[in-house]
Amino acid sequence: MSAAKSLSLSSSIQICRIMRPDDANIVGNVHGGTILKMIEEAGGIISTRHCNTQSGDRCVAALARVERTDFLHPMFIGEVAHVSAEITYTSKHSVEVQVIVLAENILTGAKKVTNKATLWYVPFSLQNVDKIIEVPVIEYSSVEQEEEGKKRYDAQKMERLETKERNGEIINPVVSPEAYTVGFSQSSLIHLVGPSDCTLHGFVHGGVTMKLMDEVAGIVAARHCKTNIVTASVDAINFHRKIKKGCVVSVSGRMTFTSNKSMEIEVFVDADPLVEAARGKYRAVTAFFTYISLDKEGKPLSVPPLKLENEEEKKRFEEGKVRYLQNKAKRQAEKERQQ
Amino acid sequence: MSAAKSLSLSSSIQICRIMRPDDANIVGNVHGGTILKMIEEAGGIISTRHCNTQSGDRCVAALARVERTDFLHPMFIGEVAHVSAEITYTSKHSVEVQVIVLAENILTGAKKVTNKATLWYVPFSLQNVDKIIEVPVIEYSSVEQEEEGKKRYDAQKMERLETKERNGEIINPVVSPEAYTVGFSQSSLIHLVGPSDCTLHGFVHGGVTMKLMDEVAGIVAARHCKTNIVTASVDAINFHRKIKKGCVVSVSGRMTFTSNKSMEIEVFVDADPLVEAARGKYRAVTAFFTYISLDKEGKPLSVPPLKLENEEEKKRFEEGKVRYLQNKAKRQAEKERQQ
Amino acid sequence: MSAAKSLSLSSSIQICRIMRPDDANIVGNVHGGTILKMIEEAGGIISTRHCNTQSGDRCVAALARVERTDFLHPMFIGEVAHVSAEITYTSKHSVEVQVIVLAENILTGAKKVTNKATLWYVPFSLQNVDKIIEVPVIEYSSVEQEEEGKKRYDAQKMERLETKERNGEIINPVVSPEAYTVGFSQSSLIHLVGPSDCTLHGFVHGGVTMKLMDEVAGIVAARHCKTNIVTASVDAINFHRKIKKGCVVSVSGRMTFTSNKSMEIEVFVDADPLVEAARGKYRAVTAFFTYISLDKEGKPLSVPPLKLENEEEKKRFEEGKVRYLQNKAKRQAEKERQQ
Repeated sequence: MSAAKSLSLSSSIQICRIMRPDDANIVGNVHGGTILKMIEEAGGIISTRHCNTQSGDRCVAALARVERTDFLHPMFIGEVAHVSAEITYTSKHSVEVQVIVLAENILTGAKKVTNKATLWYVPFSLQNVDKIIEVPVIEYSSVEQEEEGKKRYDAQKMERLETKERNGEIINPVVSPEAYTVGFSQSSLIHLVGPSDCTLHGFVHGGVTMKLMDEVAGIVAARHCKTNIVTASVDAINFHRKIKKGCVVSVSGRMTFTSNKSMEIEVFVDADPLVEAARGKYRAVTAFFTYISLDKEGKPLSVPPLKLENEEEKKRFEEGKVRYLQNKAKRQAEKERQQ
Repeated sequence: MSAAKSLSLSSSIQICRIMRPDDANIVGNVHGGTILKMIEEAGGIISTRHCNTQSGDRCVAALARVERTDFLHPMFIGEVAHVSAEITYTSKHSVEVQVIVLAENILTGAKKVTNKATLWYVPFSLQNVDKIIEVPVIEYSSVEQEEEGKKRYDAQKMERLETKERNGEIINPVVSPEAYTVGFSQSSLIHLVGPSDCTLHGFVHGGVTMKLMDEVAGIVAARHCKTNIVTASVDAINFHRKIKKGCVVSVSGRMTFTSNKSMEIEVFVDADPLVEAARGKYRAVTAFFTYISLDKEGKPLSVPPLKLENEEEKKRFEEGKVRYLQNKAKRQAEKERQQ
Repeated sequence: MSAAKSLSLSSSIQICRIMRPDDANIVGNVHGGTILKMIEEAGGIISTRHCNTQSGDRCVAALARVERTDFLHPMFIGEVAHVSAEITYTSKHSVEVQVIVLAENILTGAKKVTNKATLWYVPFSLQNVDKIIEVPVIEYSSVEQEEEGKKRYDAQKMERLETKERNGEIINPVVSPEAYTVGFSQSSLIHLVGPSDCTLHGFVHGGVTMKLMDEVAGIVAARHCKTNIVTASVDAINFHRKIKKGCVVSVSGRMTFTSNKSMEIEVFVDADPLVEAARGKYRAVTAFFTYISLDKEGKPLSVPPLKLENEEEKKRFEEGKVRYLQNKAKRQAEKERQQ
């Protein structure tokens, strides 16, 4: 058996589940958040299993970062989602997991790739939740494979250091806002963290947080364009700080940019440890979600342009435009490389 | 900034969530129980947060009482429910929370107030669950505001003392009952309390209990009139005794009164601590739910009159009629005051 | 009051719950797994309550075995499921529970028996989870009743000893399988055990496991015949080994036999204790599920015959045929006895 094969068998996992009505919106499109939650669950299982194959402290792997993800096709109620995850790189303290999601229509047998995602996990000790465990090294099929992994590791590490600035911002309520302005569609929700949301050490699963973020972003998008909307992509998300059982999580979203057929929504997650008044509320996660609007045949509709009302909104819009054009160029380059 | 404004900022909360298929009945009307559960969650968060702003024991606020609530408009799947809660009064050992629920159709932008509710919470220590904590005083915008709160506090305290009598009653099964009798529609369900149902100290959230009560009352109403039914109002509910994780909760309902277009259902909640045989089953909560029957356009239908078979049922019917007429008069008086 | 009556009152329970969209497939048929989970919950409550009526260690009853169950009629969203459970026999260390499930259409009032089931529970101490508690004796209405219970107890004990052989088998993935072969429809899913899945001692409820098994079997059946499918029966299931909180459960299914109008699917459940590398993965449960395919009027459709590709598959098909003919003969005999 080749080394590549042995890698895939010892450190891979396949999850599948039928999509239920509560996983989808009224039209039957499965929420992006449901898919992100499944992806993270698969990654968490495989990383935790891998980091416990050595002696020493038992540990649970916590999500540290998700790379930018595109939602290539919508998934529907009644379809079976297949999530395949594989460990593709390990550094001293982190595990890279690559995930592919397939949607299978079990009646026709048709299958489509709906997502590809890359996640980074860090293992924390069950005995001492602030202690990071060393990750056992995986075997690579070639030196090149290891070197490419090292490059991805360095690239994400640099990006994580750069994304700590937006953390101070807050979303203020607006009284009687005009249609199509930022204030008109901005939204927030609150969730009391329960036991089902948490890992064995009582911290919120990254997938649970992403599902809440997608829920808020979806409300913002629907409020803006008042049609059926679906998640098109999620920018890289960094999980700076853990959220504990018993916290209240506030998730807020505001629109930052609209192109002809897409909307970018910035989402903030704040954690408030209810019974530990000393610690106070803190920013746990921020991210950008991109949504598109679909007609009854599933074709993209035009999106009403965002009305900008002040300099800050204009600045955020321009930054959003840069991200939009960069991603467009990247997708174009990838397409050409594949041809 | 005025004192009223500062009050509202320091001790208020906004929860919102999209209504899913499992939150509603087959026709798409959101269950009253789903709304009551959200209301109670908001109240629990805000009270717990407030009572932990001081030094000393950490604590969790437990629901002690919900004042009578009217459901003014039905809410539908796909709408966003907004729950705004604010602390409006504090006594030495209790917190009053007032809540407003809005239903927003995110596609049309239309918003309707569906509920207003008042809840009373008591904070229990996390270190010693039988110990009640002192509540930090809130700031009032005026002396009148504080005095009105004190009046509401005294009124509910008196009512709570009066409602301990029905606790001995039980609902006996009836063999082959005639249509439209009490025995024909009476119903009960059983629920094993799991970790997701419980607070940090392992007691059932009041909102979980109210959701189960609404579920039983809805079955009783549907059995009686065999049409689409919705919760119209809930009488004041007192939570006499806490229910612990691992208990089995039995919830039973029977119809007590019918007017032309409404049905009153009495609901009993009993808790049975499965593994603590010594304690035995006890009555935890009782309440009255009022339901109406709607046609396809959402207009109220006539309700078949309840057939009374014995003196006890006639007595309960007369008592229900008194409550019905009192509430009608109150609503009428309120309408006139607002004009 | 007769002894039979007193038995029924002291050791029986009634559970009821409205069926929600997430309990059913797209056509509205409630999943067999949802019903099995409710049956097991009722049995677990009644057995745990009974075993705690004595002094000594507090305990929780764990499911050890479910006898073969037929699903007599489909149940639909919006119907109320009534589950009545009664303790019918006790041995030194086990409790036999008999359960009847009724589906009630609350709008028309129509009721149908959908299931009858027999379950065996064993009580484990809460203080020491490996210690089995002695079961208090129940009162029988007659000597014959006790003797018949003893016969059922001995029969199931012998069958349990016989069914330990299939445990070594695993389901290997097949690359690009042909339609209607075993490899074409075989499926598996993975579930991370959370707190809501577990008893008070942190072991997975038997009902949760059965629901996952039915989910996999349903996917296998739908993949094979590509039509609306429902659970027709479940063979006896033995719960050899407990599954703990924090485990990953892998559930795999493959088709073993097809008759003209039915499909038999073999399901394996493996538990993998993620953070206890020393223990390793183990087989926890195995079972056979039978599915039928229904048209829009609810009438059974023909099933495409299973294509067998090797000797092992032919052997399993022949064994499935024996089970099929035995069950057919049993049902025929029962029908004649009732006439």
